[in-house]
Amino acid sequence: MIDNQHRLDGVVTLRELILADPEALVADVMRANVIGVNTHDDQEQVAQLFSKYDMLAMPVVDNEERLVGIITIDDVIDVLQEETTEDMEKMAAITPSDKPYLRTSTLEIWKSRIPWLLLLMVSATFTSMILMRFEVALSTGLIAFIPMLMDTGGNSGSQSSVTIIRGLSLGDIEFTDLFRVLWKEVRVAVLCGVTLALCNFLKLLFFDRVGMHVAAVVSLTLICTVFFAKIVGGVLPMLAKKLGFDPAVMASPFITTIVDAMSLLIYVRVSMLIA
Amino acid sequence: MIDNQHRLDGVVTLRELILADPEALVADVMRANVIGVNTHDDQEQVAQLFSKYDMLAMPVVDNEERLVGIITIDDVIDVLQEETTEDMEKMAAITPSDKPYLRTSTLEIWKSRIPWLLLLMVSATFTSMILMRFEVALSTGLIAFIPMLMDTGGNSGSQSSVTIIRGLSLGDIEFTDLFRVLWKEVRVAVLCGVTLALCNFLKLLFFDRVGMHVAAVVSLTLICTVFFAKIVGGVLPMLAKKLGFDPAVMASPFITTIVDAMSLLIYVRVSMLIA
Repeated sequence: MIDNQHRLDGVVTLRELILADPEALVADVMRANVIGVNTHDDQEQVAQLFSKYDMLAMPVVDNEERLVGIITIDDVIDVLQEETTEDMEKMAAITPSDKPYLRTSTLEIWKSRIPWLLLLMVSATFTSMILMRFEVALSTGLIAFIPMLMDTGGNSGSQSSVTIIRGLSLGDIEFTDLFRVLWKEVRVAVLCGVTLALCNFLKLLFFDRVGMHVAAVVSLTLICTVFFAKIVGGVLPMLAKKLGFDPAVMASPFITTIVDAMSLLIYVRVSMLIA
Repeated sequence: MIDNQHRLDGVVTLRELILADPEALVADVMRANVIGVNTHDDQEQVAQLFSKYDMLAMPVVDNEERLVGIITIDDVIDVLQEETTEDMEKMAAITPSDKPYLRTSTLEIWKSRIPWLLLLMVSATFTSMILMRFEVALSTGLIAFIPMLMDTGGNSGSQSSVTIIRGLSLGDIEFTDLFRVLWKEVRVAVLCGVTLALCNFLKLLFFDRVGMHVAAVVSLTLICTVFFAKIVGGVLPMLAKKLGFDPAVMASPFITTIVDAMSLLIYVRVSMLIA
């Protein structure tokens, strides 16, 4: 219902009109204080409102509170699906596109993938530099475990970052939860790190049959790597959002690059300590 | 509308009833051949039906075609959000949980993350074995580029796998598209591989100032790694789905493990060829 200035006053459903007393005024039947959205609102936020309040339709008003349209829930589903696909693409280091894969040309797919691959390839220069500098420190036996350490670090970090990014986008997690998230990730990281290091230590000694020294260096590095990976994975998306960056872009690939460099530095340091 | 055996005959909306000729029979006004769902249908498939046909509600029938209930679109949104969160969690190597992160205990988070971390850690044994066996072949200078090669391979593979997994779950891609996907990924892989290898070759020569031999081995390995990573990333989720496995579980982490081992083997082989 709108008043004579075209401003939104309230809503009434067909069912309510039929069931209402025939003598009643529309103003008595309608619900005022309607949840509406503005023409300038972000479509993702509007979609979250629908999902939160289980609404079927919402009026849209302009800056003068005049009714200009209506959004129905079937449009919202499309928006939610699109936004989620975009989030997934960003997390996988792809520039989002709204075309279905099979109808996108090879060149377009290349264009959406290559900038990120190049950027991440160049940022891996850090790991090369660390390895070139400390190749002597990481002598025989230790180099063989670099991929395992980097992958376990990367996986630990992605687990945290994907959980937090999804929580942020569903509205389950806010920036004010930063310290709760940090504290939870610290505890999970210690539990995971210790479990992994213990299993790895036994595997190295009894299955791979490496020396006690190598087993100790690798397992200790594992604890530290998992610890830092989970902290970075949990905190980075929240900081990104606070600073106005897209948390999804900060996810898996970038965190992997950071965690890789970090785990190598820890590995070198630990191997020197237990030398 | 149901007949006297409680079987679903057709649907009619309140609006259609009001606008209909008062003398008409319900059978004339209602639409027969209703899209309905069975009580045994998977909730994710039902949600995709809603999204595809822009429906607001759907009747639910049992195996005898008797009407037993109705699903409305606001329930569908919740299902879609839940299923997508599950897909993301699986892709990040987490056992899905339906509790929000902040209300999940540390021990429960640990339980949903540790089995995958352990499994992936143990599966990285392949990379250690390859490195132990060929440590001599990968002499000075080459080891420094292992992380870059593995990460670029992993990122290339995830780009493909995440795109395909999302396409499969949205119904954009079917198993019958296998060869179209394969052919598209082959062309994208060649384009991406050549671009990356060229940039990397120049960077290695003029920025990192390594010898021509190292630059050639690293860049050639890069092309092959990106090529295989994109094929594995594109095809594995489709095969997984065909075989009845969940494509999301086969995503990033497993593909990373496979691609890591593959890229090391290629690296060793190429370095021997150009020795």
